[in-house]
Amino acid sequence: MRGFSRKTRASGGSISGKMKPGVLFGVGLGPGDPELITLKAARLIGAAQVVAWPAAPGAESLARAIAAGLISPGVLELRVEVPMTAERAPAQAAYDAGAAEIGEVLAAGRDVVFLCEGDPLFYGSFMYLLSRLAGRFPVEVVPGVTSLSACAARAGVPLAARNEQMAVLPAPLPEAELRRRIEASDSVAIMKLGRHLPKVRALLRDLGLEKRAIYVERATQAEEVICPLSEAPAVAPYFSLILLRKGDDPWL
Amino acid sequence: MRGFSRKTRASGGSISGKMKPGVLFGVGLGPGDPELITLKAARLIGAAQVVAWPAAPGAESLARAIAAGLISPGVLELRVEVPMTAERAPAQAAYDAGAAEIGEVLAAGRDVVFLCEGDPLFYGSFMYLLSRLAGRFPVEVVPGVTSLSACAARAGVPLAARNEQMAVLPAPLPEAELRRRIEASDSVAIMKLGRHLPKVRALLRDLGLEKRAIYVERATQAEEVICPLSEAPAVAPYFSLILLRKGDDPWL
Repeated sequence: MRGFSRKTRASGGSISGKMKPGVLFGVGLGPGDPELITLKAARLIGAAQVVAWPAAPGAESLARAIAAGLISPGVLELRVEVPMTAERAPAQAAYDAGAAEIGEVLAAGRDVVFLCEGDPLFYGSFMYLLSRLAGRFPVEVVPGVTSLSACAARAGVPLAARNEQMAVLPAPLPEAELRRRIEASDSVAIMKLGRHLPKVRALLRDLGLEKRAIYVERATQAEEVICPLSEAPAVAPYFSLILLRKGDDPWL
Repeated sequence: MRGFSRKTRASGGSISGKMKPGVLFGVGLGPGDPELITLKAARLIGAAQVVAWPAAPGAESLARAIAAGLISPGVLELRVEVPMTAERAPAQAAYDAGAAEIGEVLAAGRDVVFLCEGDPLFYGSFMYLLSRLAGRFPVEVVPGVTSLSACAARAGVPLAARNEQMAVLPAPLPEAELRRRIEASDSVAIMKLGRHLPKVRALLRDLGLEKRAIYVERATQAEEVICPLSEAPAVAPYFSLILLRKGDDPWL
């Protein structure tokens, strides 16, 4: 962790006395199959005395579920509850509170392992804790397997080959913008489908690309779904995406 | 592996007698640190009786080096030599030969674990074997941590947050095309820099973005380099990339 973040909160003075602060580990857990956790993540989780994880209010934490078999009995667990709202203020307040709680543990000299679905810095919640804590405490990020790589592996299609360019597009983007990006790219992954699936599907149909698109839901998890987009369910969960290759087949 | 590849070579009849064929595993090893191998990849490599790996002529194989500590003594190792040429025919012939050799082992009922740097389907050589063998043999792809995730983790910058879109661009693309894509995206990763670094750097300077760009070389490997692009070496290896965030800081 070399700290190229432009905004850190180097407030100073918050570490009490001369105590060596704990290290904050942001640990990627991969897409869901606990065997897709890295050796390093498994080692850190197994040795952790304090783990923290994000969860929506009232819901179980997917991150904690993926790592469950590795967490030692009796460790301190910190739940960071993040409201899933379109407005940013409630989530920001939740991250402020979570960072304060984790910061207290770090200031007391104890390491904290923060569990992250997929990769910590690819659409993850860890970056919001990083921005709040990196100026005051040592931080190490352990990258993980993204849902993107998992979906490609399970569907058996390449993400990108040779000099192809790939666009990663969140489905909530306006339709006109999605259209421009899809038209301009060789390979496209459309993330966070949820209630935006009908919009995306209609757009791909209009572009004559629906038949080339693959729908993947909860890759490597027990409830995994993989099918041509034309056979996708009408309603998609948040953890679903579309893979689309437009170029000629680069395989041969 | 559900097999959505459009071109497979379902030749049939190539599996001798009634022998159950072996499984081809395409196993991602992550960016270089052997601890970033997944538990699943480590298990498969440790149990393998036949491993295969790509290498440039006369060079050591990075994939084999990453996995070296996990390969049991005395296993059969198949080297797939792939010439690094701009023309495709020499590499295609090499993949044909490698696939034929691996296919013989699979047809004899033995599993083959093919070692892949990073993720097998993200600019990897495995996809060329997949296209040649998937029609005739069972294949399973094990996703790995990409160099992209590793670079972001080591540099401490997010790849993408919230509804940001990310473009993955190979540096060999023409300058005008790189320019258009960079202008249109919130977050950009420029891969495969090599001898194209001066072109990319001049372009980013011209766009007023050089100061925001981070250069990362061989992330998580012993020779790792991370610095602002303005301090990057004049000559970059193939395993280097630039991370660039253009949007407002999404962290807070």
